[in-house]
Amino acid sequence: MTTTQRPAEKMRLGLFIEGGGHHIAAWRHPGVDPAGRLNIDSFIDAARTAERACFDMIFTADTNATFGSDDLDYWMRSSAASRLEPLTMLSAVSAVTQRIGLVATMSTTYSEPFTTARVFASLDQISRGRAGWNLVTSLKDAEARNFGKDAHAGHGERYARAREFAQVVMGLWESWDDDAMVYDQVAGIYMDPGKMHVLNHRGAHFSVRGPLMIQRSRQGRPVIVQAGGSEEGRELAAETAEVVFSVQQDLEPARAFYADLKARVVRHGRRPEDVKVLPGVMPVVGRTRAEAAAKYEELQELIQPEVGVKQLSNYYGVDLSQFPLDGPLPEIRDTNAEQGRRALIADLARRENHTIRSLYKRIIGQRAHRVVIGSAAEVADALEEWFTGGACDGFNVLPATFPAGLRDFCDDVIPELQRRGLFRTAYEGTTLRENLGLPFPAIHRERAPGRE
Amino acid sequence: MTTTQRPAEKMRLGLFIEGGGHHIAAWRHPGVDPAGRLNIDSFIDAARTAERACFDMIFTADTNATFGSDDLDYWMRSSAASRLEPLTMLSAVSAVTQRIGLVATMSTTYSEPFTTARVFASLDQISRGRAGWNLVTSLKDAEARNFGKDAHAGHGERYARAREFAQVVMGLWESWDDDAMVYDQVAGIYMDPGKMHVLNHRGAHFSVRGPLMIQRSRQGRPVIVQAGGSEEGRELAAETAEVVFSVQQDLEPARAFYADLKARVVRHGRRPEDVKVLPGVMPVVGRTRAEAAAKYEELQELIQPEVGVKQLSNYYGVDLSQFPLDGPLPEIRDTNAEQGRRALIADLARRENHTIRSLYKRIIGQRAHRVVIGSAAEVADALEEWFTGGACDGFNVLPATFPAGLRDFCDDVIPELQRRGLFRTAYEGTTLRENLGLPFPAIHRERAPGRE
Repeated sequence: MTTTQRPAEKMRLGLFIEGGGHHIAAWRHPGVDPAGRLNIDSFIDAARTAERACFDMIFTADTNATFGSDDLDYWMRSSAASRLEPLTMLSAVSAVTQRIGLVATMSTTYSEPFTTARVFASLDQISRGRAGWNLVTSLKDAEARNFGKDAHAGHGERYARAREFAQVVMGLWESWDDDAMVYDQVAGIYMDPGKMHVLNHRGAHFSVRGPLMIQRSRQGRPVIVQAGGSEEGRELAAETAEVVFSVQQDLEPARAFYADLKARVVRHGRRPEDVKVLPGVMPVVGRTRAEAAAKYEELQELIQPEVGVKQLSNYYGVDLSQFPLDGPLPEIRDTNAEQGRRALIADLARRENHTIRSLYKRIIGQRAHRVVIGSAAEVADALEEWFTGGACDGFNVLPATFPAGLRDFCDDVIPELQRRGLFRTAYEGTTLRENLGLPFPAIHRERAPGRE
Repeated sequence: MTTTQRPAEKMRLGLFIEGGGHHIAAWRHPGVDPAGRLNIDSFIDAARTAERACFDMIFTADTNATFGSDDLDYWMRSSAASRLEPLTMLSAVSAVTQRIGLVATMSTTYSEPFTTARVFASLDQISRGRAGWNLVTSLKDAEARNFGKDAHAGHGERYARAREFAQVVMGLWESWDDDAMVYDQVAGIYMDPGKMHVLNHRGAHFSVRGPLMIQRSRQGRPVIVQAGGSEEGRELAAETAEVVFSVQQDLEPARAFYADLKARVVRHGRRPEDVKVLPGVMPVVGRTRAEAAAKYEELQELIQPEVGVKQLSNYYGVDLSQFPLDGPLPEIRDTNAEQGRRALIADLARRENHTIRSLYKRIIGQRAHRVVIGSAAEVADALEEWFTGGACDGFNVLPATFPAGLRDFCDDVIPELQRRGLFRTAYEGTTLRENLGLPFPAIHRERAPGRE
């Protein structure tokens, strides 16, 4: 499929890096190094491959817990026991890449805004303006128990804290005017104290004085990324996010989400193009559709039933092992999981009339994201349809396996997108913000009004 | 000077990296880039230079605050407004070095043990066994005010928290037996749950369940470094540290500290060689002693009086600007600063009969550390005297300026130490622990007794 109408903007592409791959059974694939999740070389290799292909950014998820001794029969079969910490991993990658953006997840629930502002500002300096922060809240009791609590906070409370947290971090990133540093060696003046701003934040959750000891970077400050699909998540994203990762299986709901989010952005006094919406997609690419389907089926066959039910339970926020495997998905209301994702799963189960077993086979392999299986041209068609159809500004790409799944996409699909004029052939700028087409951020001096 | 008796062990050398240099006025020196404190290339350059010279490790200090709007006349003249965050900086350095150890400071006062355990374990994996953690407590009110508090905790309370913090971190680092990972792709077994251990710590300061999601590294776990000179600091070091950085101006007190610490180590059931004591030293090297003295004097002339008094006040824990500049150092007892350093400063002032002005000139340039000025042979003599004289196991080297001060030491002093058989000519191992001659750490299973 080719269309004659091309958007003026190019497609934005993020690479979601996950050791071994995003398919739930990827670590079992013979082409995957099962020990690679702690091997920095596998992450460096993926980042360099993505940079050669001109991806806007690499992105890494995070969690503040692995698991306890519950349900060990599941956990022993998953690769969740091993995960590098995102800021250290991306800092290492920054030293051996030049242009690609580096987006790390950090939770607002169990960290301090001063520390978060510091580490991201530091990565932004080290990478010369390529950092991004995926702002999330933590929702697992296992995470709470690593930080002195017995259970996680409620949804509303987590988002109230997250919103104040973001305000403090943004304020700390504006501690210094862009021309604050004097560096006059002869006169002995390092900086102009009149251009330093003390935050003096005192709010419901945090009291933080500032200033930060890191000045603004080439891109001003890190790019803000969010992924929440709930009402609170969408509002926080519309207010503060510059990139939104979403989970969308089908075109029409994706269009509706896109329109809803852009409308909210405008209601917050921002321009629609100030936020890039990137739904996740798992591409499985072959020379033919049949070859691609065979690749996918090889992975699906590696899913163990214990893993499928448990992972579906995590997405749905309910322990499904107590329900019949061949019975329907139970409908659950008003609990405290990721509301956006739950609604999507329940809707899918109803529409396609799934049992728990068929549902986990339908969505667990690709971790609830859209999967596109086909030749390079067919995968490019599927991406183009959404991009030109008002459903997104690009995609967050989740290769089923590393390195093979990533290489298939970079070697075959990216050139096809480039031939169609949909994707860049060289980086436009040196910073993540420049490459995403986001404006250099002005300082909002009301956030850090000045000296005491 | 050459001696015929050589210790069986080689000298251990750490490089204390500080953007611009350790002399208080380094940033004003014409050979120093005043903007270099946020430039990762200057840190990478220093690390590579040190690695070519076979240093055991690079080390970076830290603080959780720069300053507020107090005393701006001082702060505008110092380079304290800019500092990269240590873990991100060293992670970047890890990607472009192979053998040198990477030691970061992180405070136990305003961080969480789960997070600290995670980031250091991650750096240890990324660097393939080259990480070290300099465990400190925070003692500035400016730091407290960035974390929701108005003043810092008392000395005893800080150390009680630090001790429990260290126990939790060490326990989390032992979440997995060394043979816990199965990686059986065919059978679908990633890990052996019987070899995973849940910490379940519940103490006075922390409740942390675990396990950590990062397995042990090539060196088992990061090397523990400490620098406290107070009674509590020495006890904590004797119990947990493997490297101790100290501040010593003179041979006899250095010998006394060394003997005291090694005796404490033995009392804690450890071997004396399980802890390496490295006093700080600022070498200023010239082709002749006169040339070296001229280099030092050039830096001393760049110290601004506002900076000298303020920095001395920080070390002494008292605002000295209220006392006459040409009067004696006031004697202060029982306040809450770094007690070890204060006692050393008071002792020096008495012995050498200093005024505040002459005292800051005497010690502020080198940030209270020993300074050795001379030809390469003279500097090597001074290091050899302490090393063979029972005062240390090596040194933490503080170049007055970067890059010139470091290059002088690496190009001239290191070869002299190597000719004398005092320092290695090639790395013995691939991990920091191997190069320091420290044993691979056994797991203390009583810290993480097992599954719930």
